[in-house]
Amino acid sequence: MKHYVGIDLGATSIKVGVVTEDGKIIARAENPTLADRPWQPVVEDIAKTAFQAVANAELSVSDIEAFGMGVPGICVDGVIPFCTNLHWHNVPINEAWSKYTDKPLFVDNDANCAALAEAIAGVSAGVPDSVFLTLGTGLGSGIIIEGKLRSGGHGVGGELGHIIVQIDGIPCTCGKRGCLERYTSATALIRLGVEAMADGTDTALHTATEGDPSRMTAKIIVDAAKAGDRVAVQVFEKYTEYLAIGINNIISFIDPDMIVLGGGVSRAGQFLLDKVNEKLPKYIFFKGLPHAKVMLARLGNEAGIIGAALLGEH
Amino acid sequence: MKHYVGIDLGATSIKVGVVTEDGKIIARAENPTLADRPWQPVVEDIAKTAFQAVANAELSVSDIEAFGMGVPGICVDGVIPFCTNLHWHNVPINEAWSKYTDKPLFVDNDANCAALAEAIAGVSAGVPDSVFLTLGTGLGSGIIIEGKLRSGGHGVGGELGHIIVQIDGIPCTCGKRGCLERYTSATALIRLGVEAMADGTDTALHTATEGDPSRMTAKIIVDAAKAGDRVAVQVFEKYTEYLAIGINNIISFIDPDMIVLGGGVSRAGQFLLDKVNEKLPKYIFFKGLPHAKVMLARLGNEAGIIGAALLGEH
Repeated sequence: MKHYVGIDLGATSIKVGVVTEDGKIIARAENPTLADRPWQPVVEDIAKTAFQAVANAELSVSDIEAFGMGVPGICVDGVIPFCTNLHWHNVPINEAWSKYTDKPLFVDNDANCAALAEAIAGVSAGVPDSVFLTLGTGLGSGIIIEGKLRSGGHGVGGELGHIIVQIDGIPCTCGKRGCLERYTSATALIRLGVEAMADGTDTALHTATEGDPSRMTAKIIVDAAKAGDRVAVQVFEKYTEYLAIGINNIISFIDPDMIVLGGGVSRAGQFLLDKVNEKLPKYIFFKGLPHAKVMLARLGNEAGIIGAALLGEH
Repeated sequence: MKHYVGIDLGATSIKVGVVTEDGKIIARAENPTLADRPWQPVVEDIAKTAFQAVANAELSVSDIEAFGMGVPGICVDGVIPFCTNLHWHNVPINEAWSKYTDKPLFVDNDANCAALAEAIAGVSAGVPDSVFLTLGTGLGSGIIIEGKLRSGGHGVGGELGHIIVQIDGIPCTCGKRGCLERYTSATALIRLGVEAMADGTDTALHTATEGDPSRMTAKIIVDAAKAGDRVAVQVFEKYTEYLAIGINNIISFIDPDMIVLGGGVSRAGQFLLDKVNEKLPKYIFFKGLPHAKVMLARLGNEAGIIGAALLGEH
């Protein structure tokens, strides 16, 4: 059995797992990122945490096939040009890593890692073509074609959150307007909830947040909608309408076998799937022909580590 | 040298070419489609025209590797479920074809054929990943990944014209609203021109059409914009803004190596490319990183026949 190490680098913590070739985590280690530091000591702590996980698995570094890391950014030719929340800019990660071990380090976007993990050991295992969406603070995404991650010829693809779905629409954090992320992320759902509460209508959203918009969460909206609160239902209908439009765009573009929903909002489970599947047919271009199934992600927070670990193999 | 036969099936004519493996047309034949007939005699005329082209090449059917046909619709598992303008519905084309020859017939969407032709013998030859757009009556498209056509797991992908770029936008012929086709086809350019002329401003568009909106063409707008007519320039700026948004969506999605523009509006040439390239940077998500080049198609109307011919090889 081959062993890999997967690193999930976030703004708050460095999470590491030793992963078998079939996607099982057999040992772990975790340390704080302390992202306000320069990147050099962060990379040193990444290496330390990775070696700690290897020791916890009662293995040595020579037993590891490859290291992999998912970052909230991208990596092109061994350099991380951007890494959101860590304030990294043009970090030569592969060169820096080579100071700690001769074993290779593969680096990719965190949503790409999660997409790969689901395609190897999760809901889309055995499915040739899939698109993974994380409905979180932003809208992360990863594209798998014929079992392989595709982030394109220049490494700038698989960014479905920044496809424009509303010309002159809502301003996005990226500087453009009308990006899909502004309509289908958990942040978008929260915004819709806050807007719906603002007119003073009696709603469970008001009760659950004690009227404080800053306390609104995706879970509050989903729970209230599940319980039948009229305002929350309307908000969730609008949100899933947007999500169905995003899914139409994926189908009309590359027609994958499966579209996988992960991230915070996906915890709404079957309730989310039902609402999306109800709306999808009216957006499908070729009415009546088969198209991608929409499914829930299975690996949850583990996906980042598992996918990162297996980057070197796929 | 291997020989193939490519058929370009349109609402008005059946155009056939005998094509070499490197994408050169060495003989032709053409007959009217007479699309008001039932599909059976149309298929008979397709076969006749194809055999006529083979005879014109001084070859016999046994010298042909494969036949291919591009249709204004799609083909799934040997059946054409939809074919615009020909009123075809669930036509079992492969079964029908087998009455005329044992040689296989490969059928695909006409824009897919043009995309393949450009990728084999045109501007994107040797480029692994490209996306082809035809800026015509509609917005046709074809996606090439690693040299191969990709219309997805169910054959319903590569329909970029029906990606939604404006939630609740302009009604589309497909029944949805805000499809990219409504903003970036030649039809969209003409609509923008007609709208701009409607307020009675003095413009070359008015002169060229003698004030008759039904005489507006993409060429009239492009010529007037090139000549510096203020209204036409504004129209073309708006159109290329929409096209830049569509191109951003392609780059953020699959980040191809090249995006190829074909169809009527692409005859505007370098003037079109300059306007699009000027606007693209502000829509690019990863500022400053390399991304797909936007290029003009090279094969013009030949692309349909050449790509159809080579379907069997790719």
